[in-house]
Amino acid sequence: PAPKVNSWNDEDYDKVIEGVKHIYKTKIKPLEVTYNFEGFHSSPLTDSDIEAKPIVLLIGQYSTGKTTFIRHLLDKSYPGEHIGVEPTTDRFVAVMHGDEERVMPGNAAAVNRDLPFNGLSRFGQAFLSRFQVSQTNSPVLQEMTIIDTPGILAGDKQRTDRGYNFTQVIDWFAQRSDLILLLFDSYKLDISDEFKTAIHSLRGQEEKIRVVLNKSDMVNQQQLMRVYGAMMWSLGKVVATPEVMRVYLGSFWTEKPPNCFEDCRDLIEAESKDLLRDLKSLRRNAAIRKVNEIVKRARLARVHALIIGHLKKEMPAMFGKKKKSAKLLANLDLEFQKIQQRHHLPPGDFPNAEKFKQNLALYDMDKFKALKEDLLVRVDEALSTDLPRIMQQFPQGNPELAEAE
Amino acid sequence: PAPKVNSWNDEDYDKVIEGVKHIYKTKIKPLEVTYNFEGFHSSPLTDSDIEAKPIVLLIGQYSTGKTTFIRHLLDKSYPGEHIGVEPTTDRFVAVMHGDEERVMPGNAAAVNRDLPFNGLSRFGQAFLSRFQVSQTNSPVLQEMTIIDTPGILAGDKQRTDRGYNFTQVIDWFAQRSDLILLLFDSYKLDISDEFKTAIHSLRGQEEKIRVVLNKSDMVNQQQLMRVYGAMMWSLGKVVATPEVMRVYLGSFWTEKPPNCFEDCRDLIEAESKDLLRDLKSLRRNAAIRKVNEIVKRARLARVHALIIGHLKKEMPAMFGKKKKSAKLLANLDLEFQKIQQRHHLPPGDFPNAEKFKQNLALYDMDKFKALKEDLLVRVDEALSTDLPRIMQQFPQGNPELAEAE
Ligand SMILES: Nc1ncnc2c1ncn2[C@@H]1O[C@H](COP(=O)(O)OP(=O)(O)OP(=O)(O)O)[C@@H](O)[C@H]1O
Ligand SMILES: Nc1ncnc2c1ncn2[C@@H]1O[C@H](COP(=O)(O)OP(=O)(O)OP(=O)(O)O)[C@@H](O)[C@H]1O
Ligand SMILES: [Mg+2]
Ligand SMILES: [Mg+2]
Repeated sequence: PAPKVNSWNDEDYDKVIEGVKHIYKTKIKPLEVTYNFEGFHSSPLTDSDIEAKPIVLLIGQYSTGKTTFIRHLLDKSYPGEHIGVEPTTDRFVAVMHGDEERVMPGNAAAVNRDLPFNGLSRFGQAFLSRFQVSQTNSPVLQEMTIIDTPGILAGDKQRTDRGYNFTQVIDWFAQRSDLILLLFDSYKLDISDEFKTAIHSLRGQEEKIRVVLNKSDMVNQQQLMRVYGAMMWSLGKVVATPEVMRVYLGSFWTEKPPNCFEDCRDLIEAESKDLLRDLKSLRRNAAIRKVNEIVKRARLARVHALIIGHLKKEMPAMFGKKKKSAKLLANLDLEFQKIQQRHHLPPGDFPNAEKFKQNLALYDMDKFKALKEDLLVRVDEALSTDLPRIMQQFPQGNPELAEAE
Repeated sequence: PAPKVNSWNDEDYDKVIEGVKHIYKTKIKPLEVTYNFEGFHSSPLTDSDIEAKPIVLLIGQYSTGKTTFIRHLLDKSYPGEHIGVEPTTDRFVAVMHGDEERVMPGNAAAVNRDLPFNGLSRFGQAFLSRFQVSQTNSPVLQEMTIIDTPGILAGDKQRTDRGYNFTQVIDWFAQRSDLILLLFDSYKLDISDEFKTAIHSLRGQEEKIRVVLNKSDMVNQQQLMRVYGAMMWSLGKVVATPEVMRVYLGSFWTEKPPNCFEDCRDLIEAESKDLLRDLKSLRRNAAIRKVNEIVKRARLARVHALIIGHLKKEMPAMFGKKKKSAKLLANLDLEFQKIQQRHHLPPGDFPNAEKFKQNLALYDMDKFKALKEDLLVRVDEALSTDLPRIMQQFPQGNPELAEAE
């Protein structure tokens, strides 16, 4: 029942990402570097920033089948995987693509600049010893990174046993995820207070959340309806939004359990297919989002270059540099307005003047580079030609419809 | 698809009710009448009070199939019934058993002492002209009275068009109902603010409510799951209790619509069967409740007789009657204690002394009847022998299990 492996291999998205990387490196980054963009906004993007895969986060009470779900998706075990009836997964595991099987401990992963986990250091040693990156060769993982998590326990046990703040860690991953799957067990529905707290902490990210009512074939149709209804009833109370969350009734196993019910098989298969399709569209969506981000960044870098170039031009050639730069700093608002008028730019494209001033105070304006036309031309080209051309490579209109064709 | 008519005819319950009526009339009522029970508690029960059938209240947006549901149950139309796609039922209709087809207008019904609708007068003429009793000969209606209601409309229309307070009327019927069925339409799920208000007004009576997701065969299985989930999600937000309401997925029609889906037929049939079984058990439950009420009433009447007899005995034979009765009144607490000690009665069985005092002040204690042993013996017999014997006639243990045998 695993997804057809080939369907995950979509070279178009690889090409898109390669294209974006190239445009950024040759047409946007030079402008950023020349005009100290890093000191005012953020450091230049690395290839791995642009390549970073969509992240799928799995959350659920223990034994709801999170790890089994991953095995189903990959059609293989990841290194260090544990599946079993007791609480088994005892740590957060980032399951990622790698040419070879490999487990990287949390400490090493958090300092690795090529991985998007540097921010996890804040949760301290108690957490890092409960985090690992598991790499394995898998076409699915070329599309996404999956975060397996320890099952949520009911009662006090978890609060006392774990040396770190579980809810905060979940929140950290959720912020960085593209999709959050909440798993429930049809056979043993159990929405503990801890689970409710975890759901609460996802507030504001509801549109990323999908619910999986797993093990749907472990109960008969009438029982499944009851369980499903009870779950929706409780979720409606916990989740503030009026929009109903998308639920998939599924059962994700690699070996069919012997005591399955078959009366909902068609439904379960249709629903599973829907979920896999949604997972498949993640990468396209992530790629679209990435192009959008780069466009935003290029526009900002352009404005930034104009500001820096303008300040440099205003500086006197020889005497009174100090006085002039103090004056520019004091009237930064006014200088911004001049630039807006000269280049017909909307004020909304400009950074916050106060914050800019604080950063500016750390620089010697005289050392700024003068505006170089060729650098500007390159970023204009990226914005007016290259990036739109990449956008056109995405299927138009409703992606689901396009896919169904 | 109507229920088997025979299964509704259960002479046992008729016998139970006849038995209760006889016991009450011969062994409890005489004590009540002799000792002015009416003046302190409530007037003697009439046969129709004891006979009163369980009431089933139907509520839902318009066109959800409330009236069609009744036609399905009765396997016939009730007099004055209207079914159609537009808002059709324009009034509250109490559908009751009668040997002949008959429509009784609201005003006549509200003054009829044999009907349990006297209290409706409070809603005024605007309401009474929108209320009727429809009688028809039906074995189902020998078991229960069904209240058909006008569909709830979305938006302002209903508040302006109706000359009475819809929510208060719903509340009045709900208080007196044994079962409240909330109907939803799978094909056109719509939970308007008005509907929410109606559900809110049922607060405190949640355990009487059952939800019917009707027209379940007008959508396919996957759509049905979505609709059902969305309904539970919304209901969970509206209904305060954590206990999930019982939902029946059903489709109650008399002529199968041409464009039905068949993929959930088994489920729908199983669920419909469950609902009909629950309806069937109503009468038994109502009979059990009735016996319980009579037991409570008999115990109260006995205590009441002891109080009145005691006060009568304390009164002097000739002089100082006024003074003595004032003293008894002032120290009623004390007199209650004496009676409790003499007859080994728990204080909890006694009425509130303050309230009793207020009623007592309206009587001349000297005119009270002395305690008659034979009346007490009769009520004791009812409590120790007759009513328990009736209770034993009910199937023991879990009624659903007993029924399945
Ligand atoms: N779809 C399924 N149908 C039936 N049984 C399942 C299914 N998925 C998983 N299981 C069983 O449920 C148990 C728990 O599975 P698994 O370890 O994957 O859950 P988990 O959510 O990862 O638990 P933990 O939170 O403890 O890591 C295992 O015995 C597994 O075989
Ligand atoms: N189970 C069903 N399947 C398909 N259609 C149905 C079903 N039940 C009722 N209908 C259709 O829905 C429409 C409304 O039915 P009905 O008049 O019984 O609803 P109602 O809830 O009583 O409406 P109102 O509130 O206006 O009185 C009718 O056209 C009826 O034939
Ligand atoms: Mg696990
Ligand atoms: Mg109607």
